[in-house]
Parts: sequence; structure tokens; C-alpha cells
Amino acid sequence: MTDQEMPTLHDIIAARPHVYRYLKPTPLYRYFGLSELIGANVWVKHENHLPGGAYKVRGAVNLVAHLSRKERDSGLFTASTGNHGQGIAFAARAHGLRATIAVPEGASPGKVAGMRGLGAEVVFRGPNYESALEWAIGAAAAQGGRLVDATEDLIIHGVGTYGLEIIEELPEVDAIIVPVASGSGAWATGIVAKTINPRIQLIAVQSAQAPAMQRTWVAGKPVTVAAHTVADALGVSVPFEKTRPFLRKYLDDFVLVDDGAIEAAVLLLLEHTHNLAEGAGAAPLAAALKLRDRLAGKNVVLVMTGGNLSIDRLRKLLAQPVSVAATQG
Amino acid sequence: MTDQEMPTLHDIIAARPHVYRYLKPTPLYRYFGLSELIGANVWVKHENHLPGGAYKVRGAVNLVAHLSRKERDSGLFTASTGNHGQGIAFAARAHGLRATIAVPEGASPGKVAGMRGLGAEVVFRGPNYESALEWAIGAAAAQGGRLVDATEDLIIHGVGTYGLEIIEELPEVDAIIVPVASGSGAWATGIVAKTINPRIQLIAVQSAQAPAMQRTWVAGKPVTVAAHTVADALGVSVPFEKTRPFLRKYLDDFVLVDDGAIEAAVLLLLEHTHNLAEGAGAAPLAAALKLRDRLAGKNVVLVMTGGNLSIDRLRKLLAQPVSVAATQG
Repeated sequence: MTDQEMPTLHDIIAARPHVYRYLKPTPLYRYFGLSELIGANVWVKHENHLPGGAYKVRGAVNLVAHLSRKERDSGLFTASTGNHGQGIAFAARAHGLRATIAVPEGASPGKVAGMRGLGAEVVFRGPNYESALEWAIGAAAAQGGRLVDATEDLIIHGVGTYGLEIIEELPEVDAIIVPVASGSGAWATGIVAKTINPRIQLIAVQSAQAPAMQRTWVAGKPVTVAAHTVADALGVSVPFEKTRPFLRKYLDDFVLVDDGAIEAAVLLLLEHTHNLAEGAGAAPLAAALKLRDRLAGKNVVLVMTGGNLSIDRLRKLLAQPVSVAATQG
Repeated sequence: MTDQEMPTLHDIIAARPHVYRYLKPTPLYRYFGLSELIGANVWVKHENHLPGGAYKVRGAVNLVAHLSRKERDSGLFTASTGNHGQGIAFAARAHGLRATIAVPEGASPGKVAGMRGLGAEVVFRGPNYESALEWAIGAAAAQGGRLVDATEDLIIHGVGTYGLEIIEELPEVDAIIVPVASGSGAWATGIVAKTINPRIQLIAVQSAQAPAMQRTWVAGKPVTVAAHTVADALGVSVPFEKTRPFLRKYLDDFVLVDDGAIEAAVLLLLEHTHNLAEGAGAAPLAAALKLRDRLAGKNVVLVMTGGNLSIDRLRKLLAQPVSVAATQG
């Protein structure tokens, strides 16, 4: 496959009418407290304000808009830890299609309830994303359904619209920090940022307790590592093959942060923005705190990719003895 | 003063270019879990997604856009429990003006930090909103500044834009539920709703622990009642005179809910929407739960006016023995 066939800025621009038929652009807010904390000018891109509380829905509504009549009639099959599934469920409902979503057995109850509330059929299949994916591939083949891959081109085109919103609203952005699971968000943001201004730094982050994609990026070849992170949306152990060359091409850096740093970032975001971030959505702040020296004085955008933290986890976080004041000190 | 001189739908439409110069329309999302809970079709209007985390900023940016050169140069003075002040601070910063905001001594630290982060001068004056207001009036007079009243016409014009967004996005809305402190939001929403479709029910809610505005509405004359609510934005003890006749004119009902019901609603909103609501922003859900029978099957919009709950209060709420599951049963 040549570069010409791969998603381009043009594809992302073309996705906009389909995305904005159902979704509004999300806010990009500057936070003065976070800026002081990091020693940079810090904005948060609020993808947590989208329906389903995560950026994934952008890709889903674009994909569904492009399906053939046959694909629409056959129903959608996909696998997800939750946010991609909520996006597909939202898009399927908007277009009146059936959607079947396979999730790992430990999937977030809130995300599962969100998918079912939107009318999707949710099935629990195996211990992790990979086992759920295997089932979805088989079920789509057996039932003649349309398998939706979380990293297929039409998804990337839709997801890229958030990067475009960032650069249009803040052309002077120096660095964008995104969490990585499949790599769809980082890939799409890379297309936009590097095509428009190659000097924009694109930094990815993953949990040190689920580092498969980061290790793969460093090694330049697939590295499988067991995932044990508290950030359910980052629970990837087998690296996604399709996004690999593009993460190599577009990322300026790819850092790991410990789950503890991610949880501290959830609390800091709650304190400073009054937004609930899930682990993946808070990871960019943890990365920015780690990279303080390099980011000093720059215009930095943290992508809050999702807000679907469970109330149980929030309760546990708030009950921990370490106060937010202490982590701020 | 005649009705002709009072804010109209035309004024609110005219405020839109000024409001949308700095702000984006907020999302109106349907929540299936909340809908089941109430037995109605329930949408939440996410005013908590605005800068400063509350609807007040809509009025502030419209007001500041209309100031004379003399008023701009003289600086702004106002009193606030927090959200109005954050709105004024945002608008003043956007236009490069000085703003001095008097707050009660117990004002929310997060809201105070928000105002200061935006460059406003914050002074603590007395035990409540009324004492802060008294100081602001005197200081504006002594220093030749522009006093900003939280219920003046230019504020109402800007605030009304959220009501217009609701009706444009959901023309089939049957009922809108708004919390009341000064009454600016309820007044502005009344202008929009009742001018466009008088059959839209407009329901106001206040804490039973701070019922001055509700008692005033029922009695048809000012009733002062001490305020002891956990919802700081609802802490009004002396009723606002200017909004009184319009609340009489526009409200179909005005209900009281206990602080305990408000706090349960904060947790329900966290569970179902993954948004953090402050007490005022959660009060409409508490009201809807109280009015279940009357709302059955209707299209109901809950206005989440603000999201500035302190992390300390959230921690206390989550540590309480009553589980969310129990309140849902």
C-alpha cells in the first residue's frame, strides 16, 4: 500500500460535514493553574464533552455515513474496551443500524451501560481486547456483518477533526500530547499537525503498566507486553499493526507514565478544570508534568480524550491519603 | 418601567454575535439512564462546559461588549458567590479591562482561584452575598467604577442565549427546569420559552435550605429567609427585586428540594453523565425526581448551570455510606 492511499489532511477535511452533522466542535480551554504547574501555557482539548464522553465518536459517525446499503443492512460488529464501542453505538443509533459490540469481561460497567442505552448489543468475550476482537471477527464473518476495525481509514478521517480544531483555534500551538491505545488518535493528529506545520511537536503517552505500543515504537517492530493498567482504555497488550508505521513517522516522542502519576493527574484535572477525566484522558497531563523542562514556556495542548471514569474508581482515588494539595506542591 | 423597555426575545437574538465571539454553543445531550430514572425523555443542557464552568459568562461577555469607552476605562466592580464573578473576570480579560469582585468570606476556593487566574482582583467582604454587594456598590461609587449588577438587562440578554439554543435544538421540548439564585437564568429562559411557545413549562428550583426566592414567588412580595444551603451558588437570603415580577410572569412552578436530594443528584449526574455538577447545577435533577408524576413521558431539559463543585465536597459526598445504586433503586 502506498502513501497516496493512506489518510491525508484532505480526507480529514472531507470528513468534517459528516462529523458536524451530529457533533459540535469541542472546547479548547486555557487553564492558568495547570499552566503554572507545568511552567508552560496549557490548554485542554475537551474531547470528554462529546456524546459518549470520548473522541472516538468522531470516527464512528464518519464511518457510518460512508457505508453501502448492503453494509448498513448487515449490521455492524466491532470490539472495544468501551469508548470506541460507545461511538459506534451512537453512530449506529443515529442512522438506525444494528450494532454488536464485543467487550472484555472486565469492561467498565458505565461504558457498557452507555452502549446498551444507545441500543447496541453488548457481548462479553474473554479477558481482554484481543479476545473480544477475535470473537467480533468471527461473528461478522459468520453472520455476514460489517466488521469495524478501530483503526480503519474512515475512522481515522473522522478522528482527525479534533486535531484540525486545535490548530485552527490555536495556530501558535507548539506541542500536542495524546494518549495511545490503538494509535488512531495519535495517527490522525499526526497527519493534521505535520501536514500543516511540521514544527508542532506530537508527543504520545502510555501507561508504564501497559507499554506495548510504546515499546513497539521504540523497537521499530511489534513488541507484545501484558497490560495491567488502571486506565482501561489504554489496556493494549498486542500492538496494533496498522498504526505502527504512522506512529514511527509522526511522533516526536512517546513517553511512559506510571499509573500512580495518571491517577494524580485525574485529581489535578478535577481540581483545576472541574472535569472528570478517565485514566487515558488524564495521561497527557501526567506526561506534561514529566516533561516540564522540555515544555517550559511553550504552548501545550493536552487532549482529554475521554471522561468515563467510574464512580467507584473516583471514590477510591479521593479516599487515598495523598491530597491534591500535596501533589501540587 | 414599561414592558417595552424590558428584555425581549429580540434583545437575546441580538446578543448572539457578542456571545459567540468568545463562546461556543453548549451541548444538549439525551441521557437514557436518567430518562429511565425519571420516566421521561431527559436531556441535560451542559452549561458546565463553558469557560469558568457556568452559564454566567454568557451575560458577562455580552455586557462587556456594550460598555462605553468611559466605562471600560473605569474598570468593573461586582459582587458574586463565584460563578458570576468568573464570568465577569473572563469577559474583562477578553477585553483587557480591570475587574474587582467582592465575594463572601466563605466563597468557594476553586471559584476564587478561577477569578484570580483570569486576572481579576478578588476581595472578601462579609459573611454573605449581600455584604459583598454592599461593598461593591460603595467601592464602585468611591472609585468611579462601573458597577455590574448580576440581573441587569445586558446580562439577561446574554444569558438568554442558552434558552434559545435549547429550543432550536429540541423544538419539541415540553419542560425546562432551571435553578434560581438571582433569577437571571430563569427570567432569560422565560423570555425565550414563553415568547416562542407558551406551552413550554418553565420550572424553577431552589434549595429548601435557602428558599428566599421561592417564598417570595409564592407570597407575591419580598420574603427574606436565612440561607444555609450546601449549594453555594444558591445562597440567597434577601430576594432580588428586579427579577421578581418576571419570575411571577414566566414560571409555571417553583419547587424546593432538600440539600440531601441535591447531593444525591450530584452523584447521579456523575454516574450517568460523567460530568461534575455543583449543587445548583444538580438541583434541576432533584426537582425532576420530585416531579416524576407530572413529567411522565415528557421531553424534559435539565439545565446544568455550573460544574464548580469543590474536590473536598466531592470527596465527602463519595465517602457517604448511601451508595448511588441505592438512590437509583
